Amino acid sequence: MSSNRQWPVPADEQSTVGKLGESGLLARILPRLRGAQALLGPGDDAAMIGAPDGRFVFSVDTLVQDQDFRLTWASGYSSSGYDVGWKSAAQNLSDINAMGAVATAAVISLTLPHETPVGWVEDLADGFSAAVRELGAMRCAIAGGDLGRGREISITAAVTGDLAGAAPLLRSGARPGDVVAVCGILGAGAAGLALLESSRGPGGWNEQEARLVGLQARPRPPLAAGPAAAAAGATAMMDLSDGLGRDGARLAAASGVVLALESAALAPDALALEPVAGGLGVEALTWVLGGGEDHGLLATFGRDVELPSGFRQIGDVVAGTAGGCTIDGAPLGAFLGYDHFGG
Amino acid sequence: MSSNRQWPVPADEQSTVGKLGESGLLARILPRLRGAQALLGPGDDAAMIGAPDGRFVFSVDTLVQDQDFRLTWASGYSSSGYDVGWKSAAQNLSDINAMGAVATAAVISLTLPHETPVGWVEDLADGFSAAVRELGAMRCAIAGGDLGRGREISITAAVTGDLAGAAPLLRSGARPGDVVAVCGILGAGAAGLALLESSRGPGGWNEQEARLVGLQARPRPPLAAGPAAAAAGATAMMDLSDGLGRDGARLAAASGVVLALESAALAPDALALEPVAGGLGVEALTWVLGGGEDHGLLATFGRDVELPSGFRQIGDVVAGTAGGCTIDGAPLGAFLGYDHFGG
Repeated sequence: MSSNRQWPVPADEQSTVGKLGESGLLARILPRLRGAQALLGPGDDAAMIGAPDGRFVFSVDTLVQDQDFRLTWASGYSSSGYDVGWKSAAQNLSDINAMGAVATAAVISLTLPHETPVGWVEDLADGFSAAVRELGAMRCAIAGGDLGRGREISITAAVTGDLAGAAPLLRSGARPGDVVAVCGILGAGAAGLALLESSRGPGGWNEQEARLVGLQARPRPPLAAGPAAAAAGATAMMDLSDGLGRDGARLAAASGVVLALESAALAPDALALEPVAGGLGVEALTWVLGGGEDHGLLATFGRDVELPSGFRQIGDVVAGTAGGCTIDGAPLGAFLGYDHFGG
Repeated sequence: MSSNRQWPVPADEQSTVGKLGESGLLARILPRLRGAQALLGPGDDAAMIGAPDGRFVFSVDTLVQDQDFRLTWASGYSSSGYDVGWKSAAQNLSDINAMGAVATAAVISLTLPHETPVGWVEDLADGFSAAVRELGAMRCAIAGGDLGRGREISITAAVTGDLAGAAPLLRSGARPGDVVAVCGILGAGAAGLALLESSRGPGGWNEQEARLVGLQARPRPPLAAGPAAAAAGATAMMDLSDGLGRDGARLAAASGVVLALESAALAPDALALEPVAGGLGVEALTWVLGGGEDHGLLATFGRDVELPSGFRQIGDVVAGTAGGCTIDGAPLGAFLGYDHFGG
């Protein structure tokens, strides 16, 4: 099955992008990039996309080999092209979701070493398309792209979205008295990453462990929840990509408030991860508070609002000039988060 | 002057992106990314851009170190961050121009090795902003981006544009009887590239040679000409990024016609490059027909149309199922063009 082809690939699939060439590769992957119909799709210098309410939201994100994924992990797991394509789509669709919008188009730029197997790139296209479809981005066209050569694999997607006339949800709208809520799984991305980087191989993973690696490799942002939060009148929202602690501190700083989180509200998340965390000698709550790549939503709502389906309260917005988050009243700090340059 | 800082940089600027960290680097470059005002700019998970006529055009392009630019060329010339930022903006704005549209927003994803000097990245932001301004993309916001680490420098920009209600100009609209026209300089990008890759250093370049290298490093797409061609009723258009031969063959194939070019119309372009070509033992016409990265426009117009300012006729559209271009009636072939994977 094409979705499981790994690197290295069997001898009969050893055709590489260097051997096939740019136009040959395009002919192989374009038919696999299936999404909604754009007003004008690939084939010209730019695509054309509808923006029914006269505006659109616009974001970009990149995955780089050995930084954001590994072809082969310490555990022996190999990231398939399907995994990488899925993750690129998921993280970009999540940014649109975080504004309360519905994705309308993606363009993709791929940088590939000469020796990249063509089958791996086909799987990447399949994974990207599958994420768009299976995550429910039914209005999202895969509208164009760019192909080039490099020493490492890199995939950048830029995505646009439609707010259907609604105001965009910003990070800066949280007000003291609001409730803090999340939608989606917390800590699965970090748990999956720890398993990928552990010495125990995929053959030794139990059902829960395999599921957590699956969520790390192919995150599942809750794409219905962003527009639902907007409709319910959320006051602020963002995507949980770098972990609750760090992302929460960003939302708090943008709003000029403090997010007072309660460990009791997060205990079920931690409890669910305990069996895996214990085996790796990790405190499960550090995954819940500090782990990235879950791509759930962090949002704040007025106290009188009924939280939309999928959201649950994890704390309260309180006044405070220090910014940041507290957990049971103690500073959480941004140290749990992730900085791409280690600074 | 910041626009001339090179790599390696002086000791007092040796602060690297690895030392500064992601948020520190963002704080240094965001103020330098000045364009038009977006409805909502950087700081949230996505920007918000206006689309007054209810649709927008959308494109993406990437520059990768050692593929699309070199930090140090055979000639000894060092590509500044300013050069690379300018070129990224120029090639992306050119794609929007080629549709007959006016750029409205750009988002930028930067992949940087740890050791990249911060000053080099600041120059890149300056060069991107300067190109947007100096090339005349006055409605283009620099609306957001993404920062990450990698083994090589890579910059991807995605750009959107506004057609102001007009139909997009496609590659597929050329009809037998139309005239073939170009706007902009032909062959300068290739001449500049040959100089960069020659053994003779920048100190030995005469005024013309320095100007050609300047056009290679900082291309100048004619951004007023795209919308003007649309207004004049061009039947087809595209950006000249991979050379007249290869791009012309693409337009011919998309339209199901042949582009019959005349060498007499291109002779002045070749003649102007002769002094430089002769010194390098090159036939100047190969630069004019085969050289990429000029980012002028190739367009077709009805025979009764007065060509807009900047366009000049170089041939005629004729019927033919073979596709491609001819020069004085002989097949030009696509072999002059450029394939990223050498296929």
